Amino acid sequence: MAPTTNAPSVHRPRLSVHRLPMAHPGDLSALEALLDEGALAAQDIVAVIGKTEGNGGVNDFTRGYFTQSLMALLAARTGRHAKDLLRELPCVLSGGTEGVLSPHYVVFARSGRPSENTGHAAQAALAIGTAMSPAVPPQAIGRWAQVRSVADAVRRAMRDAGIARAEDVVFVQVKGPCVTAARARMAQEQGHGVRTAHAGQSMAFSRAAGAFGVALALGELADDPALEQALLQDFALGSARASVSSGVEVEVNEVIVLGHSTLWEGPLRMRSVPMRDALDIAAVADVLAQLGLQAAPQLPPEQTHRVAAAFVKCEPDRQGSVRGARHTMLDDTDIDAQRHIRGAVGALVAGVLGDTRIFVSGGAEHQGPAGGGLVAVIAALA
Amino acid sequence: MAPTTNAPSVHRPRLSVHRLPMAHPGDLSALEALLDEGALAAQDIVAVIGKTEGNGGVNDFTRGYFTQSLMALLAARTGRHAKDLLRELPCVLSGGTEGVLSPHYVVFARSGRPSENTGHAAQAALAIGTAMSPAVPPQAIGRWAQVRSVADAVRRAMRDAGIARAEDVVFVQVKGPCVTAARARMAQEQGHGVRTAHAGQSMAFSRAAGAFGVALALGELADDPALEQALLQDFALGSARASVSSGVEVEVNEVIVLGHSTLWEGPLRMRSVPMRDALDIAAVADVLAQLGLQAAPQLPPEQTHRVAAAFVKCEPDRQGSVRGARHTMLDDTDIDAQRHIRGAVGALVAGVLGDTRIFVSGGAEHQGPAGGGLVAVIAALA
Amino acid sequence: MAPTTNAPSVHRPRLSVHRLPMAHPGDLSALEALLDEGALAAQDIVAVIGKTEGNGGVNDFTRGYFTQSLMALLAARTGRHAKDLLRELPCVLSGGTEGVLSPHYVVFARSGRPSENTGHAAQAALAIGTAMSPAVPPQAIGRWAQVRSVADAVRRAMRDAGIARAEDVVFVQVKGPCVTAARARMAQEQGHGVRTAHAGQSMAFSRAAGAFGVALALGELADDPALEQALLQDFALGSARASVSSGVEVEVNEVIVLGHSTLWEGPLRMRSVPMRDALDIAAVADVLAQLGLQAAPQLPPEQTHRVAAAFVKCEPDRQGSVRGARHTMLDDTDIDAQRHIRGAVGALVAGVLGDTRIFVSGGAEHQGPAGGGLVAVIAALA
Amino acid sequence: MAPTTNAPSVHRPRLSVHRLPMAHPGDLSALEALLDEGALAAQDIVAVIGKTEGNGGVNDFTRGYFTQSLMALLAARTGRHAKDLLRELPCVLSGGTEGVLSPHYVVFARSGRPSENTGHAAQAALAIGTAMSPAVPPQAIGRWAQVRSVADAVRRAMRDAGIARAEDVVFVQVKGPCVTAARARMAQEQGHGVRTAHAGQSMAFSRAAGAFGVALALGELADDPALEQALLQDFALGSARASVSSGVEVEVNEVIVLGHSTLWEGPLRMRSVPMRDALDIAAVADVLAQLGLQAAPQLPPEQTHRVAAAFVKCEPDRQGSVRGARHTMLDDTDIDAQRHIRGAVGALVAGVLGDTRIFVSGGAEHQGPAGGGLVAVIAALA
Repeated sequence: MAPTTNAPSVHRPRLSVHRLPMAHPGDLSALEALLDEGALAAQDIVAVIGKTEGNGGVNDFTRGYFTQSLMALLAARTGRHAKDLLRELPCVLSGGTEGVLSPHYVVFARSGRPSENTGHAAQAALAIGTAMSPAVPPQAIGRWAQVRSVADAVRRAMRDAGIARAEDVVFVQVKGPCVTAARARMAQEQGHGVRTAHAGQSMAFSRAAGAFGVALALGELADDPALEQALLQDFALGSARASVSSGVEVEVNEVIVLGHSTLWEGPLRMRSVPMRDALDIAAVADVLAQLGLQAAPQLPPEQTHRVAAAFVKCEPDRQGSVRGARHTMLDDTDIDAQRHIRGAVGALVAGVLGDTRIFVSGGAEHQGPAGGGLVAVIAALA
Repeated sequence: MAPTTNAPSVHRPRLSVHRLPMAHPGDLSALEALLDEGALAAQDIVAVIGKTEGNGGVNDFTRGYFTQSLMALLAARTGRHAKDLLRELPCVLSGGTEGVLSPHYVVFARSGRPSENTGHAAQAALAIGTAMSPAVPPQAIGRWAQVRSVADAVRRAMRDAGIARAEDVVFVQVKGPCVTAARARMAQEQGHGVRTAHAGQSMAFSRAAGAFGVALALGELADDPALEQALLQDFALGSARASVSSGVEVEVNEVIVLGHSTLWEGPLRMRSVPMRDALDIAAVADVLAQLGLQAAPQLPPEQTHRVAAAFVKCEPDRQGSVRGARHTMLDDTDIDAQRHIRGAVGALVAGVLGDTRIFVSGGAEHQGPAGGGLVAVIAALA
Repeated sequence: MAPTTNAPSVHRPRLSVHRLPMAHPGDLSALEALLDEGALAAQDIVAVIGKTEGNGGVNDFTRGYFTQSLMALLAARTGRHAKDLLRELPCVLSGGTEGVLSPHYVVFARSGRPSENTGHAAQAALAIGTAMSPAVPPQAIGRWAQVRSVADAVRRAMRDAGIARAEDVVFVQVKGPCVTAARARMAQEQGHGVRTAHAGQSMAFSRAAGAFGVALALGELADDPALEQALLQDFALGSARASVSSGVEVEVNEVIVLGHSTLWEGPLRMRSVPMRDALDIAAVADVLAQLGLQAAPQLPPEQTHRVAAAFVKCEPDRQGSVRGARHTMLDDTDIDAQRHIRGAVGALVAGVLGDTRIFVSGGAEHQGPAGGGLVAVIAALA
Repeated sequence: MAPTTNAPSVHRPRLSVHRLPMAHPGDLSALEALLDEGALAAQDIVAVIGKTEGNGGVNDFTRGYFTQSLMALLAARTGRHAKDLLRELPCVLSGGTEGVLSPHYVVFARSGRPSENTGHAAQAALAIGTAMSPAVPPQAIGRWAQVRSVADAVRRAMRDAGIARAEDVVFVQVKGPCVTAARARMAQEQGHGVRTAHAGQSMAFSRAAGAFGVALALGELADDPALEQALLQDFALGSARASVSSGVEVEVNEVIVLGHSTLWEGPLRMRSVPMRDALDIAAVADVLAQLGLQAAPQLPPEQTHRVAAAFVKCEPDRQGSVRGARHTMLDDTDIDAQRHIRGAVGALVAGVLGDTRIFVSGGAEHQGPAGGGLVAVIAALA
């Protein structure tokens, strides 16, 4: 019997990853060109992760500017409303291209959805899935309720990706909401207390809860509400596969899961390695080696083009020193500590890759070792 | 017969290099402790190069604070006047410990002066020499007169070091004066024009003239006044062995020459390698390899202790891109471009060395390739 | 005989000025609300002047974000293309709400166009006119060609406003283009030299040319190309009725003229007074007094509501002192000098007005006395 | 009968106030000149309050640089040890000369000590007294023990000044210690908990405790340890005569009391007025009027010279708005909020005084109204 119109594709889906430059935070012309030339269909885009040239702080509006521009473009190309796209398409931006880092964005598109109908391939290929949690009320932020909310979304994103086993997940990008003064007041008027009303602290708690949520979903942490006390306290807990941002601009937890699945096909593979501190250049070499790439000390030009995207989480060491020598990042009134560390670790990774188009994000609480973080790379098979 | 009081030492001099931490820019306690315990004699100190935690700009007073504190300590220990020490002892400070960089200073001391009387050793050892030029009038700054003044001082510093051949010089640190509004007025009242009255631009011209002066002394450039036009114009000219700073705090050209001489003894050796751009991690591995050190990709702990000091010059690429990808350093109103590049290249070098105590200085005009710079390392033989 | 369909209105036009808050640079909700409730018709809007909370420098993208948001809103409400609106509607934004300054925008709308058919009113009322010059090629920026281009646009804007006499013009807002590295290259490839290829300097030249252009149109300066040499040199020349911005985002000179005309009606009046230095609080009291408002030392609450908008141009004194005491704005590597002066003069004016919603813009070359600037206020009759 | 050698002076002491410029934070040449010409005797100097051109934050070393330079000068002139002078002479510096503010320092000297032996003058003159508390252990900072320690020191400083009644005190400058990471560890090793181990928060608690201590000594607050909970919570409590700084560089509470006493003579008088918010220009006019000075709106030149010194405390409004309009100081990642507010309120006060040499300090917790602060002026009688 012939398949009906809505029958699943007989082809396994393929993930494509496009790393595109921007001339300024409102410049989507590179994506527009890809859409124009048919290299990519707007409706196949499932997630965007990017770095804009803002300061990465509360008053960084380059993220909002980029998002508005992206959604306007995709709305024009899909005939859908920008507001609806905003609710469905995770767009995770980290402000701050300190030092050699280059403003860019990574567009993830898939040619279809994974389905058991296609049968399993011999070799697993890179797969993607996304999910949005319900709105997180202010009083839940930085509490176990948010941890569970993130974990649920991660599980749904895994299903969306067709990834059944936690060990096949390589990298989970989360973006969570934070408490603002206005949201704190709203909660208090309804009789709810918030963990903190300080926006900066709340962002840290939201990142911590996000990391715990990933750890929960991946079986790295028990679902024990008593562990709520460990948030921002016990940095031995967490997940080195989690990369979490938080911001005032979202009210839900947005989740992107990347991992491998035999329901997908294509040449892309991904690895993630913890960084033990800000000088852990060996971790960068290691993640590349796991993908069959040799940095000695830099990736040779003939291997550089195989790298599709790179993601880094990092943080200034809380004790104020790196390998025993004092650093000055935490007490600097002129330059934010996150700007310092992004510029430093970004350059280290860029030096090994021979490429400055790296997503580097600060605020790595519970996302890899304290004072370190993680480095993750997507590369094509040789 | 007993040697007379003024007889030359029968021992060849030995250079010692002490890399010391500071808790703040006025903290000389580490040096004080060395002097107290007799590890070092105050009168043997011939030069200091350090990084303080300021912004590295015109309004960076951490350099003056450190210098005042150093001279007060040495005055107390030598019985000499701080003002006299200031005129004799080069103290070159670069403000700005962005990212992982650690505030520190390198003290150079010699156990005596080189002399032909000792005969030549079989193997050349690291040697140091210093010189101060006469005061440079404002109208000479950034002009050929300054180039020649620096060259003369470099030649005198070479003689002071007992280094006869230009090819034995590895690294020349220069600190030159700049024009300020007040100095420009003074010059104009005396009928002299200045190349520029803008402090920032004048500092760049002074660095450029310093680099040309080193190149002149080392035979890398002809003594042709017409080349004055090439200052800040033709970046193919200059010297990859020159590291030049400039500042309002000096009126002369201060020069430190480091190189090898058979009139010295000891285990220290030095190498300098140009960096072709801000990602030239191979240059860092190369300079180490020339010293018998293997970074793969990082120096192993058992080799780290052999490194006595590391010096880097770097600059943001003037075309606005690194390996084809746009950088944002030059148009940033929030963070000075030199702060960006120091944090980036400093982290790259620190990652290879496994150590954040690196002298990293911006403003690398004519000091190595444009958009790059140089990396120099002092290490002990195994 | 009855008027034909296209007959001019028998009513004289009325200018309305709406000073609106924004929660962030993409927030046009206050204007949207006015449009929704019918307080304002989108097609009556002729100009917008606003302050966004960026850094005010080259990498301030809050201006572009606001402009994109504004044009999207007006496109939706007028059925026109955002790109066409961009070409017709001057939107002059100054980034930087340092200190007490509040992000806001001023919307200028007119109920019709002035026409001789209505006859002249007994009393002149505040009038507005706008004009856009043709594109200014890079080689013309900061040259007499740009001066004349601005002057022409000012004259056309005066006609658009129905203001015949230069003495009736109170305030001219200009926004001009600048040379960027890319534009300089383009010009050079076509055989044209540019006055400067440095973006920051080019912005200053463009502002200077804008001020001269206003002075030319208002009869304050002769049309003598030899005066091109006076740009950024002779600060005694210029116009204290000119307020000029420049930026990479425009290629033409945008002009808004405000003044008085008997072809208009309504309660609004405007005055502009030069500020002789950054402490010229008397100028602020004076401009208010000319509008019948008494600040003693602050405007009383019952007069505050009569103020519709306030505009200030200012600059850090080039000699480095204010009333004989040294200031530190020009040599600060941490905070841009324009951010310093906006925060200072903005607070001074806000203190007298009792209101922090003030358009304060730096870069006041030739726009009022050197080291000072101007203050202009729109207020309603009592 | 002739007085014995140690007999009290028959003259009442006179306070002299010298407001001096500095070219950089290590420049004491203006004071040196006064000492050289005999206008001032080094041993008569009892306190210094100044503004240096740093960032005012934890990594502002301009304060330490100035202090080291000052103590070296006074040690040379008095033959005493700099370390001893440091322990006896309050030197309160606020970093940050944002906007028009000018780096300067105010030297307080007295010609003798007040004594009942001189009898009382008909009219009270400005008097000064100083005191240092014992060292404050880390666990006491921001607790009632520090409040009492400050109160004790204020009472001793009042006695030193010969001021008997609390209502005669006009202005109390306090500088208190804060907890650092190192001090917190030390306390914890000895079994003591600290209120906070975060340096920035600890500085705020120390300022709050200082303000409460002043209020306690002046009878504005009850000695009730339960009020410890009100620190940084109930901003209705405190003292509008207190100006408090805190920093890592001190371990004791340093106190300077200024007020009026009939045991002193001379033309100087002082007034202090609370500022209700950052636009309270009326407070500035009021404090001047109380001293017989008329600002309309600016002090005329013939009155300007009567002002000997001006002191301001201020803070960004915690609710994020000034007179109903949003400000952006608290969420700015590029410029510290204290730098914003100092530049703004400093310019407002400078505009009224016609002088930019104003001591403006942020961190005004409990020192005047929340979101406001205080303004205090010393002036000579006409």
